[in-house]
Amino acid sequence: MKKIYMDYSAATPMRPEVIEAMQPFFSDKFYNPSAIYLAAKDVKKQLEAARHSVAVILGAKPAEIIFTAGATEANNLAVQGVARQFPEGEILISAVEHESVTAPAGLFGANEIPVDDKGLIILNKLSNLINDKTVLVSVMLVNNELGVIQPLAEVAKIIAEVRRDRAQNGNKLPLYLHTDAAQAGNYLDLHTSRLGVDLMSLNGGKIYGPKQSGILYVKAGAKLQPLIVGGGQEFNLRSGTENVAAICGFAKALELAQAGRQAEFRRLNGLRENFETQLKDNFPTATINGTVKHRSPHITSVTFDGEDNERLMMRLDEKGIMCAVGSACSASSDEPSHVLRAIGLSEARAQSTLRFSFGASTDQAAVDQVISTLCDLLINR
Amino acid sequence: MKKIYMDYSAATPMRPEVIEAMQPFFSDKFYNPSAIYLAAKDVKKQLEAARHSVAVILGAKPAEIIFTAGATEANNLAVQGVARQFPEGEILISAVEHESVTAPAGLFGANEIPVDDKGLIILNKLSNLINDKTVLVSVMLVNNELGVIQPLAEVAKIIAEVRRDRAQNGNKLPLYLHTDAAQAGNYLDLHTSRLGVDLMSLNGGKIYGPKQSGILYVKAGAKLQPLIVGGGQEFNLRSGTENVAAICGFAKALELAQAGRQAEFRRLNGLRENFETQLKDNFPTATINGTVKHRSPHITSVTFDGEDNERLMMRLDEKGIMCAVGSACSASSDEPSHVLRAIGLSEARAQSTLRFSFGASTDQAAVDQVISTLCDLLINR
Repeated sequence: MKKIYMDYSAATPMRPEVIEAMQPFFSDKFYNPSAIYLAAKDVKKQLEAARHSVAVILGAKPAEIIFTAGATEANNLAVQGVARQFPEGEILISAVEHESVTAPAGLFGANEIPVDDKGLIILNKLSNLINDKTVLVSVMLVNNELGVIQPLAEVAKIIAEVRRDRAQNGNKLPLYLHTDAAQAGNYLDLHTSRLGVDLMSLNGGKIYGPKQSGILYVKAGAKLQPLIVGGGQEFNLRSGTENVAAICGFAKALELAQAGRQAEFRRLNGLRENFETQLKDNFPTATINGTVKHRSPHITSVTFDGEDNERLMMRLDEKGIMCAVGSACSASSDEPSHVLRAIGLSEARAQSTLRFSFGASTDQAAVDQVISTLCDLLINR
Repeated sequence: MKKIYMDYSAATPMRPEVIEAMQPFFSDKFYNPSAIYLAAKDVKKQLEAARHSVAVILGAKPAEIIFTAGATEANNLAVQGVARQFPEGEILISAVEHESVTAPAGLFGANEIPVDDKGLIILNKLSNLINDKTVLVSVMLVNNELGVIQPLAEVAKIIAEVRRDRAQNGNKLPLYLHTDAAQAGNYLDLHTSRLGVDLMSLNGGKIYGPKQSGILYVKAGAKLQPLIVGGGQEFNLRSGTENVAAICGFAKALELAQAGRQAEFRRLNGLRENFETQLKDNFPTATINGTVKHRSPHITSVTFDGEDNERLMMRLDEKGIMCAVGSACSASSDEPSHVLRAIGLSEARAQSTLRFSFGASTDQAAVDQVISTLCDLLINR
C-alpha cells in the first residue's frame, strides 16, 4: 500500500540539500564558534554566512536575525520578551494563533482580536482594541489549521497610524507587530518590510529543514528581553553554543523554499482546488472551512457533519492516508480546536473536522486516492 | 602540520554512532511525534525509548527527563523556572558557575557561595548562607574552566538537614539542589540519587553528541515554571515539536559516554598528570589552577605569569594547537574570567591563563607536542 502523507503542516522531511548543508558540522567542523582559534573562526564565518543569507531573503540586516530552536521558542521570545521589556504594556493576539503564541500571551493577560466566520481577523475590531498601552500585536501570516492568510498589510497600516498618533500625543510606548510565519515559508513572500512587521517567527521544521531550527526576526531598534540568558550569543537575545549544523540547514531550507515558492504555490493551489471540488461533488453536506480567496495552497480544513474526526482519521490511516485532527500540537488534548471554535463551529462540528495539508509528495494521484478512500469510508459503507 | 585539538570542554565532534542514531529521523521518520497516525506514533515510541534509556542511566524515571535545546536552556529552565514558581524564594549559586547559571540567577538577585583558592565551594559558608527563604542551590558538578569537581554529596547532606529543620519548623518552602553537569558526562557517575540532586542539566554538545541537545532532570515532585510554553510537549515543561533526531543522538551519546567513562577517566587522568608534570618541569614559575585531588581528568588550567594569554593562544594556533582562554562563551568578552577571579587570581594573572581540555583524540604524542611547542614559544624564543 502506497502511503499518502497529507500532514505537511505538522512536519516536513528534510531535503537532501539540507542534510548536505548540515553534515560538515557534525564531526568535522564541530568547533565552538565562540572560540578564537582559526578553525573555530571559520565555523563562525559560516554561521554568519547563513545569517546573511537568511537576512537577504527577508530583506533584513544580519543583526536582525536571531537563531532559535524552532518557532515555538521564537514565538515565546517575541511575546514574553516584549511583555517583560514593557511590563506596563498590553498585548493583542488574534483568536486563531498557534498555542506557542496563545500560551505565552496568556501569561500576561493578552486580549484577543476576533475573527470572522471565514477565519480572517476583523480589522475594525483590531482598531478598537488597540489602546494607549498596547505594545504588541501578534497576528499569524498563515493559520495552521485553516490555511487562511491574514491581511497583514492592513494590520501594519493600522499600526502605523497608531504610531503616528502616539508620536503626536507624546506616548513613548512602542507598538510592535509580530507575525508567526511558520506555515508561510514554502508559499508566501517573507520580505519583512513588505509585510510591515517588527518581529517574525520562522520554523525550519515546516520548510523541509531541521526540526527545532528557526529564527525570530527582530527589527533594528525593537526592544525585548531574552528568554535564555548566558554566554550572550545571538546579540544577547538567545544564549547557548550555536547549533551551526541546524543553522546552516535552516538557511538552506529557507533559500530553497523561497526560490521555489511561486511555482509550488501554483502547483498546490491547483491540486487543492481540485481536491475541494471533488469533496463538494462527492460530499454535498461537507463544509470547507476558512475563506476561499485568502488561503495558502497547502491546507484544506473540512467538516464532515456527524462523523467523529479521530475515528475517521484512524480509518484513513489504516488505508495509508495520514492527515490531522486539528493541529498536531493539540492532537493529544481532548479540547476541541480553539481555531475552529473561533470561526463559529460548534464543539460537535469542530470534532467532525479534518485537516489535509499538502506538500512536496502531493500529486493528482494522491488527491484522487484520498477522495476515493473517503468515498469508501463515508458513502460506500 | 598535524592539528592538535585541546578544547574538548568547548565542543566535541559527534561520534559516528550518534550520527547513525539521528539519521533515520531526517527525511524518513520525520513525522511530528504529536500526530496520531501510526507512523507518527512509531516516532513517538522511539522518542520515549530515548527518554527511557536516559532515565535508566541517571537512575531516574522517564517522566523526570525533560529534553531541551542544550544545557544553557536547561540551566535557564532550572533557575528561572524555580525562581518564577517561588517568587518569595531566594537563590544561591556557587561563585564559579557557568554564565548560563550566573545570568539567569542574576535576574533574581541570587547570592554567591564563595570558593577557596583551589576552586572548591566553602561548605560552611554555604550552610551560613542558606536561610528560610532559600529555594534553590545551584552548584556545578565539574567546573568548565578549572575541572574542579565540587563536593556535591556534602552539599546534598547540608540541604537534607535544612529540609529536616524546615519540616520540623513548619516552613513549607522546598529547597532544591541543582547541578550543571555539562562537563561531567564523559567521566563521572551521573546517577541522580547518588548525587542527591533534584535538578541536573546535561549537554549533548560536550559528550560527542549533537549541539543544542540536552536535558534537565527534574525530580518527581519538584515544581517549576516552564520557560517555553505552547503545545505542552515534555510534560508541559518545554513546548515545541520535538527534535527526535537530536534526542536520539543525545541518548546514544550519553549511553556511550557513560559506558566508557571509567576507562576514559583513567586514560585521560594519566595523560593530564603527565602533562602537568612536564609543565612544572619546564616552566617552574607556571601555576596549575584548581585542586589537585578533586579534578576531572580532562582540564588543565595553567597560568604563565607575565604572558598575554590571547597572544599565546594565537601563537599556539599558528603551530596547530587549539586551546582556550577561559571558557569559549566568555572568549569574546574582554572581562577577565569570573572563575579565575573567584579563586583569587589577579586580573593580570587571569589574563595569563590558558585552558587545555582533553578528549578522544588526546594521546601522549599530543601532550608532548604541546609541551615542546610551549617550550619553543616561551623558553627558546
